[in-house]
Amino acid sequence: MECLDIAVLLFGGFEPLDAFGPVEMLGYLGKIDGSPVETRLRFVSQQGGLVRGSYGVPVQTLPVSGDDKPDVLLVPGGGGTRPLSKDASFIAMLDSLASRSEHCLTVCTGSALLAATGQLDGRRATSNKRALNWVKSVRTQVNWQNQARWESDGKYVTSSGVSAGIDMALGWIAGQYGIELARRIAEHTEYRWAEDSHDDPFAVDSQQRQ
Amino acid sequence: MECLDIAVLLFGGFEPLDAFGPVEMLGYLGKIDGSPVETRLRFVSQQGGLVRGSYGVPVQTLPVSGDDKPDVLLVPGGGGTRPLSKDASFIAMLDSLASRSEHCLTVCTGSALLAATGQLDGRRATSNKRALNWVKSVRTQVNWQNQARWESDGKYVTSSGVSAGIDMALGWIAGQYGIELARRIAEHTEYRWAEDSHDDPFAVDSQQRQ
Repeated sequence: MECLDIAVLLFGGFEPLDAFGPVEMLGYLGKIDGSPVETRLRFVSQQGGLVRGSYGVPVQTLPVSGDDKPDVLLVPGGGGTRPLSKDASFIAMLDSLASRSEHCLTVCTGSALLAATGQLDGRRATSNKRALNWVKSVRTQVNWQNQARWESDGKYVTSSGVSAGIDMALGWIAGQYGIELARRIAEHTEYRWAEDSHDDPFAVDSQQRQ
Repeated sequence: MECLDIAVLLFGGFEPLDAFGPVEMLGYLGKIDGSPVETRLRFVSQQGGLVRGSYGVPVQTLPVSGDDKPDVLLVPGGGGTRPLSKDASFIAMLDSLASRSEHCLTVCTGSALLAATGQLDGRRATSNKRALNWVKSVRTQVNWQNQARWESDGKYVTSSGVSAGIDMALGWIAGQYGIELARRIAEHTEYRWAEDSHDDPFAVDSQQRQ
């Protein structure tokens, strides 16, 4: 059976649910009866070692290596993305890692980091609606979407804020392996999946706020 | 400002979203504008050190100490609960820690561990609907609820499976600090909160399955 190699890229100040919502769904993909794939999840960071997310969440990571080629790269958002979006060394590492990845999924302001590499130029992408004005300012060449729970364009899938990453992960699974499998994972994890990627109740508020 | 001390009790084979869904909501409680409290989150385990959840999620923990008195104790579920429910040393540690905690929140099969201490005897509690027959067998003296997204009884709040812990955490926040604050946290994390603790779409399937 094929084994999907999934790398979760962490950094100081990542948002816990951005990472562990999709991790749960992608991990479940590998264990649910009838799945056509197994999954192997790895937690990586630029330097390796203990990385602390928001609220002090302490996760042990391995360093990213120059020949790392994950099937799926997951990039969460969080407060840590603000300084990293201007960190040339981090962005060069992400540019290289995302180029070598078969699929690249981001959650919340993780799309700002991916956008900073230039790989989203001309592509449809989205982000947390409360942070969208800042995210747009990071890279204006991206075709930023104001109303989307998640957006797929080529190998890139970007999601809206925090819990939207769960919907996105299920959407990606549906696209790769069929919607019935995604629905079964949602049922097993007792998650009310919003299957329509453009059903985004948080978009209108955002426009009013900004 | 009051600082809520929140201890998250981890163990080998904990389910990541069980822990990090509520962690996100409880953490956000400490940072959202207008919150009456700050929050401090700690990750603990019986022995301390690196603990691996499902899918290999590696979290660094501190050991539980005999005089640990958290304001809030959070106990996730996961495959690791099956052997631990029969582990006298672990259950004695949990019995003592839960007794000293001001509030005790469990997710999914975490309620089986808490039930094994006897502290839920005669109280309303729930768990993952797919695992409910096993959970009931761990402690028949509990007033187990077949249809509940989460159940509050005294200082104990138990939730249904995996993602239900997010709804429960917001429900607990609503009970302590008011529903408007809980709604604002849901909006900031772009989460469609199911506010009614007894709106449990996964209960009926469970009865059909069992």
